[in-house]
Amino acid sequence: MTGRKAILGLALTDGYGALAGAWRAPHVDADNYARIEANIRYAQAAERGGFTFLFTPDFPAVRGDVERSTISNIMDPMMQLAAISQATSRIGFVATGSTTFQEPFNTARQFKALDVMSHGRAGWNAVTTSDPAVSANYGKPVAERAVRYQRAHESIQVVQALWGSWQEDAWIKDQTSGRFIDASKLRPVNLQGEYVASRGPLAIPPSEQGQPVIFTSGGPSPHLLQLAGRYASGFIAEVWTIEEARAQRQMVRDAAREAGRDPDDIKYFAGLMTTVAPTVREGLDRRLALAGDVIEARLPHLGALLGLHIEPSRYDEPLTPAQLAAAHASPLDPRSSIALDVAREGWSPRDILAHGVIDYHPTTVGPAEVHADHLQKWFEAGAADGFWISPDIYEDGVDAFVDQVVPLLRARGIYPEHYAGATLRENLGVPRQYGPDPRIKKQ
Amino acid sequence: MTGRKAILGLALTDGYGALAGAWRAPHVDADNYARIEANIRYAQAAERGGFTFLFTPDFPAVRGDVERSTISNIMDPMMQLAAISQATSRIGFVATGSTTFQEPFNTARQFKALDVMSHGRAGWNAVTTSDPAVSANYGKPVAERAVRYQRAHESIQVVQALWGSWQEDAWIKDQTSGRFIDASKLRPVNLQGEYVASRGPLAIPPSEQGQPVIFTSGGPSPHLLQLAGRYASGFIAEVWTIEEARAQRQMVRDAAREAGRDPDDIKYFAGLMTTVAPTVREGLDRRLALAGDVIEARLPHLGALLGLHIEPSRYDEPLTPAQLAAAHASPLDPRSSIALDVAREGWSPRDILAHGVIDYHPTTVGPAEVHADHLQKWFEAGAADGFWISPDIYEDGVDAFVDQVVPLLRARGIYPEHYAGATLRENLGVPRQYGPDPRIKKQ
Repeated sequence: MTGRKAILGLALTDGYGALAGAWRAPHVDADNYARIEANIRYAQAAERGGFTFLFTPDFPAVRGDVERSTISNIMDPMMQLAAISQATSRIGFVATGSTTFQEPFNTARQFKALDVMSHGRAGWNAVTTSDPAVSANYGKPVAERAVRYQRAHESIQVVQALWGSWQEDAWIKDQTSGRFIDASKLRPVNLQGEYVASRGPLAIPPSEQGQPVIFTSGGPSPHLLQLAGRYASGFIAEVWTIEEARAQRQMVRDAAREAGRDPDDIKYFAGLMTTVAPTVREGLDRRLALAGDVIEARLPHLGALLGLHIEPSRYDEPLTPAQLAAAHASPLDPRSSIALDVAREGWSPRDILAHGVIDYHPTTVGPAEVHADHLQKWFEAGAADGFWISPDIYEDGVDAFVDQVVPLLRARGIYPEHYAGATLRENLGVPRQYGPDPRIKKQ
Repeated sequence: MTGRKAILGLALTDGYGALAGAWRAPHVDADNYARIEANIRYAQAAERGGFTFLFTPDFPAVRGDVERSTISNIMDPMMQLAAISQATSRIGFVATGSTTFQEPFNTARQFKALDVMSHGRAGWNAVTTSDPAVSANYGKPVAERAVRYQRAHESIQVVQALWGSWQEDAWIKDQTSGRFIDASKLRPVNLQGEYVASRGPLAIPPSEQGQPVIFTSGGPSPHLLQLAGRYASGFIAEVWTIEEARAQRQMVRDAAREAGRDPDDIKYFAGLMTTVAPTVREGLDRRLALAGDVIEARLPHLGALLGLHIEPSRYDEPLTPAQLAAAHASPLDPRSSIALDVAREGWSPRDILAHGVIDYHPTTVGPAEVHADHLQKWFEAGAADGFWISPDIYEDGVDAFVDQVVPLLRARGIYPEHYAGATLRENLGVPRQYGPDPRIKKQ
């Protein structure tokens, strides 16, 4: 383990933060969804803290309760990251892009352009899309899983081939001789799959890291693991416990090995939502002030999670010793044991939920040590190579993490003092690649 | 005519300039194709000169002699314009995007995101694509014209409907009441065409100009005129003479009228390539130094253009009085009469070609007056509402135009002293629009 350092990514979503109601905080500009200037500030703060990448989830359709909540992703990942690339110099960009609804030529072109514009800091989170609302926005039916994954393999292969089609030494640009490109090194790819095809070449030269890094994300289905094993340098996970994460990380590493790659070439990222506050109590109050209605609505479900009946009149009282003795965690829901641990600390049902125990990812609330302890424990248990952090409120949550948690991680020797290099590949610690990986057979 | 002002756009192509060989100029960085920083400098220079927009032609395939010439367009129009939007504050962006190979939902999303990020400065040059090399990059056959235009109409209608699907007053964002969006004002479009479809809505609020401006470009075929008449606020032409331009501009205006719109709502732009130099001779020498090989290769064709036989041994001598008397312009090629006019000024065949007479657009070479005279003559003849300018070498050609030609245009009263407003629509002088134009019937 000595010398191994954790890698951090920052999730950029709606412009406000991971906490329901973040947009309503008095110190937050409610216009931020439409203000690229806000995302630029968050990116710069993350870069100040040595974050390796920004991660933009994407769901190109409207979902959820937009009356009270927000749009769940930034307006357009690629357009915003192109702008952010010019206001930063080291942090990388991992943008979600669908293999199901995007043309590989467009994906190849936009991501490699971003890679060149950012001097080697682009990554593509290649995902399949099965959501009916997204499909409908493209006027297409939902494809079945086997078809989606076949198209995903083909798309990634076409994209990587297009990235390599301008060979690394093709660009002569000798003003004296007048020779611009060695045309023999700008070669068509002529790939024809079952679902996608492209002739190429793509007229974009190598970036400082060669070509963008590929990520993927989601639950570890056999289909996704095979995709990750073959192509991905990063895996963005949704996982609740150290045990789950260790097992998943091993599956991802095994998938890489099976595809003929070095398992260290794929980095596994666990998620964490953070509320940094002087005390746990102040952190809970910050969360209750903005997400109190969401927490209120979830209170009836907490009893089920703990195998208890909880009277609404006692939502603000700690569980009784008898309740604590009777409570048990469901083996089917990993959030259940987390809720039970928090309950045993003596918090009321409302405060238990304010700890984020049934939010979408593990959540840490309180002073810097709480967050650093969580990250260190997971990291040292081999549960992750790094983490994607979702601050509760971007406006001050990124700075708080950078100013308070990052120094602790550094003092504990598990986080780098400065960027290892100028490119995303260098900061991830994954090898250079140009064109398809020769170790992987075409499917 | 009083008070009418010419509108200028700057074509951004390969990072070097419109002159073949611009990339080889000693004062030009041969890396500029891959350097967004260069395009940012040109954009800022154009903005200093009050240019209304940057125009990015696009041809997403490799063509031409890349051994000696360059790639004919910027790496990726949308990604680069997103970056440029953050380094400028008034100049607009008219990006070419194909209706043939792009999904309307992606087009709607990226252009409206650019519009919001730039605070109301985006435009879409909507074109159909018939080129086999481009089609092959998307793994598609070339569609016939009627199909391409049917898809174009459907695509623009879907895009505009998606732009309007977040209604102008939908975004409440009231932090006190906690109401984010009036969900009843975020409405699906449910459009199903023969070739494209989308359910929507698109989760992007209005920009300062409502939604992006639509342009189109090309030769005035009946299909293109119908498209322009229905949707376009700008028409980017390829035209050689004042007579042609006046006739085309009238056709475009008539098409708008036939579609039920005000003909003043569509602006017609003629192209011009410029070499600004202290004297015509110095301008010709600048062009010969960098494009001498291209000019040399074209010399055998000049005789045909003038109806003459020209001995190669006399390429550097002015035409004789007998030749000039015998020369005649072909009525079939408008460049022919321009070549004859230049020949009559006493230039040698090589210098005639150095005037750009058979380049892709009219060309002006020499001191500021030459360019201003051309623009004024065309503008006052009603041949254009504005011009898209292609400087010979961006590195100094944009500044030269801005510092030398723009002041003359202003002194002559045909160019605005400052930006009329902050949005592209304001600076074009076209009306606000949100969603589809209610005057246009769906096809």
